[in-house]
This record gives sequence, structure tokens and C-alpha cells, in this order.
Amino acid sequence: MSGIAKTPKPPYYAVIFSNQRTEGDYGYGKMAVKMVELASQQQGFLGVESVRDDELGITVSYWDSLDAIQCWKENTAHKIAQDKGKTEWYKNFALRISKVERDNYFEM
Amino acid sequence: MSGIAKTPKPPYYAVIFSNQRTEGDYGYGKMAVKMVELASQQQGFLGVESVRDDELGITVSYWDSLDAIQCWKENTAHKIAQDKGKTEWYKNFALRISKVERDNYFEM
Repeated sequence: MSGIAKTPKPPYYAVIFSNQRTEGDYGYGKMAVKMVELASQQQGFLGVESVRDDELGITVSYWDSLDAIQCWKENTAHKIAQDKGKTEWYKNFALRISKVERDNYFEM
Repeated sequence: MSGIAKTPKPPYYAVIFSNQRTEGDYGYGKMAVKMVELASQQQGFLGVESVRDDELGITVSYWDSLDAIQCWKENTAHKIAQDKGKTEWYKNFALRISKVERDNYFEM
């Protein structure tokens, strides 16, 4: 899951999830790995990029349509994770749904 | 600069910059701080979120228009940084320009 996602030509969608964790793990690490696995199996999934440091985490997932994002939002296992996110894992988060209009890649 | 950006109601724009560094600093740390300072002073700048771990960095900056993004792209000091990015600092990057259509915040 690490590294830069190989996405197709725009337009496509990006879900930018910026978050700050509570203290302690409480099953978070295991869930995070499982959610990436599950998301990757969803129709319309294009890729994911995820980074966390001591202060902030950013996960950007890429999708081919708003419908695909909506289906993933309603996935049962994901819904359980969303609930635990609000009650246990996250202090704060922002979730932004955006349409990628242009992109540009560089490889040394 | 750390933390979650307080952005206004959508629509607005997000520039998602995902990157992998070369080994060594070569003035990167100092430049990164300076670029955030400079970007913050640009017209149309709405906020920035930035995280790096050993494998990947993601910086998302938010802007009120495509024009504001274009002006920042053409800023002289930023252009110098962009050049050094390609010759010295980055192994790979993806830069994606997206329009935020919806957002959702949570605070515990």
C-alpha cells in the first residue's frame, strides 16, 4: 500500500481523509490494514496513498466515480470501522471528496 | 503548519502532492518550511496539510480557484524550488489538481 498510486487519466475522484488519532492503538493498526485490503477489492477503486506521522495522518484514495465512493461508504465492514473511528480512534478528521481534473507525474 | 486545515464551504480546490524523497537533505527541510510560509501569503490560499514518513510524503494545499493555483505555480521562488525538486529532492512525485465538491468534519 505504500508508494504513489498509479491512477488513470483524469477525470477521476480523490477522497482526502486527514485525521488525528487518539492515544493508544485499540485495534486501529489491524483495522487500517484490513480497510485498505477491502477498499482495494471494491469496484471503481483506483489506488490509495497513506502517510502518518506523530501529529497527522493523510490517506488519499482514488475512485472512478462518485457511485464507487458511495458504495464503499456503505460497505458493512467499513461502516463498523467508521463508527469505531468516531468513538475510539480519531480525535479529529476532515473528509473531502474531490474530482481530479489534472495530474502530472515525475520519475527521476 | 501541522494539523487539519480549516477550509470554507465547498467548492474549492485541493492540490495533492504525493512524493518520495531522494536520500539526504540538501536544503530540503529549510525550503519546505519556506514554501509553506510563502504559499500561505498567496492570494486564494486556504490552508495546507502535510505529512511525511520514511517512504512517502503527502502535502495537500487548498485554494479558492484554479487561478490562485496557477499564480502559485508561477511564483519565482516556488519555480526555483520546483526545479530543485526535480534535480535533487524527489525520486518520484504525483501532483493532482482537484475540485473539492463535498466535505465533512469530525471533532471528538
